[in-house]
Amino acid sequence: MNKKALAILMRARMRPTNPTVQSLSPFAKEMNQMQQNSQESQSAGHVVQRASEEGNSREFELVRASMHSAISMNKTEVLDTVLTSFSEGYFSLSRENRRKLLLVLAREYDLNRAQVCELIKQYLGLPPPRDKAQVSSSEEECSFSSFYRIERNLRNALKPVYEVLFDRLNTHPGGLRFLSILRADILSILTEENIASLRALDSYLKEKLSTWLSPAALELHQITWDDPASVLEKIVAYEAVHPISNLLDLKRRLGVGRRCFGYLHPAIPGEPLIFIEVALLKNVAQTIQEVLWDSPPIPESEATCALFYSISSTQPGLSGINLGKFLIKRVITLVKRDMPHISTFATLSPIPGFMQWLLTKLASQTVLAESDMSQQQAEGSSSTSTFWENILKPEEEKTLMSISKDIVTGKNGMEVMFNLLTSKDHKWTKSPELLSVLKPPLMRLCTRYLLQEKKRGKALDSVANFHLQNGAMMERINWMADQSEKGLSQSGGIMVNYVYR
Amino acid sequence: MNKKALAILMRARMRPTNPTVQSLSPFAKEMNQMQQNSQESQSAGHVVQRASEEGNSREFELVRASMHSAISMNKTEVLDTVLTSFSEGYFSLSRENRRKLLLVLAREYDLNRAQVCELIKQYLGLPPPRDKAQVSSSEEECSFSSFYRIERNLRNALKPVYEVLFDRLNTHPGGLRFLSILRADILSILTEENIASLRALDSYLKEKLSTWLSPAALELHQITWDDPASVLEKIVAYEAVHPISNLLDLKRRLGVGRRCFGYLHPAIPGEPLIFIEVALLKNVAQTIQEVLWDSPPIPESEATCALFYSISSTQPGLSGINLGKFLIKRVITLVKRDMPHISTFATLSPIPGFMQWLLTKLASQTVLAESDMSQQQAEGSSSTSTFWENILKPEEEKTLMSISKDIVTGKNGMEVMFNLLTSKDHKWTKSPELLSVLKPPLMRLCTRYLLQEKKRGKALDSVANFHLQNGAMMERINWMADQSEKGLSQSGGIMVNYVYR
Repeated sequence: MNKKALAILMRARMRPTNPTVQSLSPFAKEMNQMQQNSQESQSAGHVVQRASEEGNSREFELVRASMHSAISMNKTEVLDTVLTSFSEGYFSLSRENRRKLLLVLAREYDLNRAQVCELIKQYLGLPPPRDKAQVSSSEEECSFSSFYRIERNLRNALKPVYEVLFDRLNTHPGGLRFLSILRADILSILTEENIASLRALDSYLKEKLSTWLSPAALELHQITWDDPASVLEKIVAYEAVHPISNLLDLKRRLGVGRRCFGYLHPAIPGEPLIFIEVALLKNVAQTIQEVLWDSPPIPESEATCALFYSISSTQPGLSGINLGKFLIKRVITLVKRDMPHISTFATLSPIPGFMQWLLTKLASQTVLAESDMSQQQAEGSSSTSTFWENILKPEEEKTLMSISKDIVTGKNGMEVMFNLLTSKDHKWTKSPELLSVLKPPLMRLCTRYLLQEKKRGKALDSVANFHLQNGAMMERINWMADQSEKGLSQSGGIMVNYVYR
Repeated sequence: MNKKALAILMRARMRPTNPTVQSLSPFAKEMNQMQQNSQESQSAGHVVQRASEEGNSREFELVRASMHSAISMNKTEVLDTVLTSFSEGYFSLSRENRRKLLLVLAREYDLNRAQVCELIKQYLGLPPPRDKAQVSSSEEECSFSSFYRIERNLRNALKPVYEVLFDRLNTHPGGLRFLSILRADILSILTEENIASLRALDSYLKEKLSTWLSPAALELHQITWDDPASVLEKIVAYEAVHPISNLLDLKRRLGVGRRCFGYLHPAIPGEPLIFIEVALLKNVAQTIQEVLWDSPPIPESEATCALFYSISSTQPGLSGINLGKFLIKRVITLVKRDMPHISTFATLSPIPGFMQWLLTKLASQTVLAESDMSQQQAEGSSSTSTFWENILKPEEEKTLMSISKDIVTGKNGMEVMFNLLTSKDHKWTKSPELLSVLKPPLMRLCTRYLLQEKKRGKALDSVANFHLQNGAMMERINWMADQSEKGLSQSGGIMVNYVYR
């Protein structure tokens, strides 16, 4: 890297540890700024505000008109100009106007339902196709050709009109990137309001994006210290699992015994869509500390294990499109080819949903237990609520209740556990005694959470679901494997190894 | 280029001038070989042949089974193995077995029609959506959400089952290339038999391929003499417009005053999907001879015009997918940026369909004229057939009829013209007299052919249609611009300049 690039990188703001700031999309950042601006204009008086509202609405109408041309125009020569002016116009809109425009797009440019109904009638009017086994090939061909024709037409009629806009933007320079930002905006609106037409728009756009970003179109790039600062800056900004704290940390992750690979798309140059960090180790690591801070690293020729310790995607607008699966597969193939002495491919992964699941469980069971007891007293019956379950084993209950009342109080083991886990600054992690009391139930419940808790047939934990869907197996869970504030809050410091075979 | 690469290139068979050999797909080449093989086995006796038939059918069943697994299997871990064994198996099949397999795919893995009908019934059962202007947003959202849901399900149900196979192959290493070969096979079968199910399969695959090969996913690469021989070899093999006759010719096309750009896809490395050849000139060239053989070329700094003189696609399986449009657009942008002194972007293009159109016209009009005359004699009426048209002007008719009967005979100008144009070895091009007689009608009729002859609203000439659709304008037609055998046969030696503004 040359001096200038390094200077740029040094000025780059390192990733803040505040998780809410991390999740802000470019749109949300802009939003903040816009709110500030609008507050300023409010204090400047009523007249200015009204003028700016009129300006806003004129601006909105202009962008809406350019969107309409971008969809309906057929002249190749000016289409590029129209697309450029539409995307530039879109960026200049306020959040409220973007929302309005996206709703116009979702509602006024969806399907021609009259045409769909017409085709459906034609389809139902066809004579039923005969059993394929009963007829000769040529008869079959005849009877099916009308089906093929109408099915094809119906398929086309079911494509929303806004597909034209997406297709045209995709072939327009910078258009793919613009579409990804557009989708980030849609997703951000959908977290606040559940609008059916916008959800339909989102799901359609997502499907289009995922065909355009098919892994065959992506280029695997090894990110090294020799890459331009503008690329490295993005690694720093988007690393979502184990934030990069300083330049030394970044250099370490790109140095000896480490690899970093990203997927690049030709239409979004210089910005990996997703990247993965790999450590070359003697054994599968059990704590993230030894991965991030083993110094000096072992010689690469002695490594037998490639450990994936972080995978981050950079585009909020590509949410839900599984690029990671193919990235892992390709990295495994590449590492295997270059370093045949590496035979184990594993991850050291966070368990982002564990604590939330556990605390909800503990709190609700405590409430149920209380209401249940009061019910028992009132009715004099001994029936227990079917929803109530002591998630602790008798011996765990006993040791938890044996903790001195000076440290923690609670009517039962679950309440004690809840109070310990929610204590300020994770106090429990500083006491060897509390650690040894909490370890058995936490490790057991974490295994249960990872293996048994499902939502619509998928693992409840998003990271677990990702790796299991990709074909990995759960290998081991590790106690006190991530003692950072984030690790303790998310999973009580527990991490898990998944293994790819 | 290193010595070894050059040695490989020198051995490379230069493109034969026989046009039928040029259009052979890899499949067709294989076919020839297979026919030879089968002839050999025939001569080896009956027993061998039957054994090979049994072997063929066993082989077919194996590939069919692996195709079924590739579609229906859900285990990520073994899917890659299955896809590899399917594609390898496919390559080993005979043409007849490939045909059988493609028909199985087209017929047995299309739609679940029962599900489509079920969804259609649900759709028709929905209350009609009210006029958007009449209802509030939230009411509208409610009434529309069931539409969105069923439309989405219907859209999915209308996807043929074989889409799974295409999608999986696309994300499989080498799969995109395989799909392109598969489609070349389908197209080759369809030229012989018009099978509705196979046509439906083809149109679906074509649509999928064109989304995967979206221009945003393609990389523009300037092909130079420094490229690997394996790439240059492909340029030699696939140049379809003006065949490359020897190494010197190739070197010339990549040298000073010339450019060659190709589109590469990350999944098909080392093989441009399409490439374009550009000459940097002082003026828009009027003949192809001055482009191919101007020696020495002018200094590049003196050029004001970039002339596209050849564009060829390399994959028969991508037929009908317009990559050229975007290639031209990107090349123009690139050249403009690098060489601001170049202000004219034009083509020197062949007119592949002109002679065929003209000769058909001349022949049919001659026949009509004859039958018309005999009719007139029989009926004694003077009505002329509504289909008959003398495409020659009176003065053209006159000069054509004035040619000595020693040279050519004919009852009228059109027959004379037909006989001249179909004379052996294009004899007419060697006589200054005949050239001067033929030039006015040929140039006039060529203009008419290019500008007025349409088929379904598109220019009848495929090259004209391509450039006009891309937004170019017809600028000038040039007499005796391509005097090669191919140029004289296709268009009587006329070429045309299209200009991109």
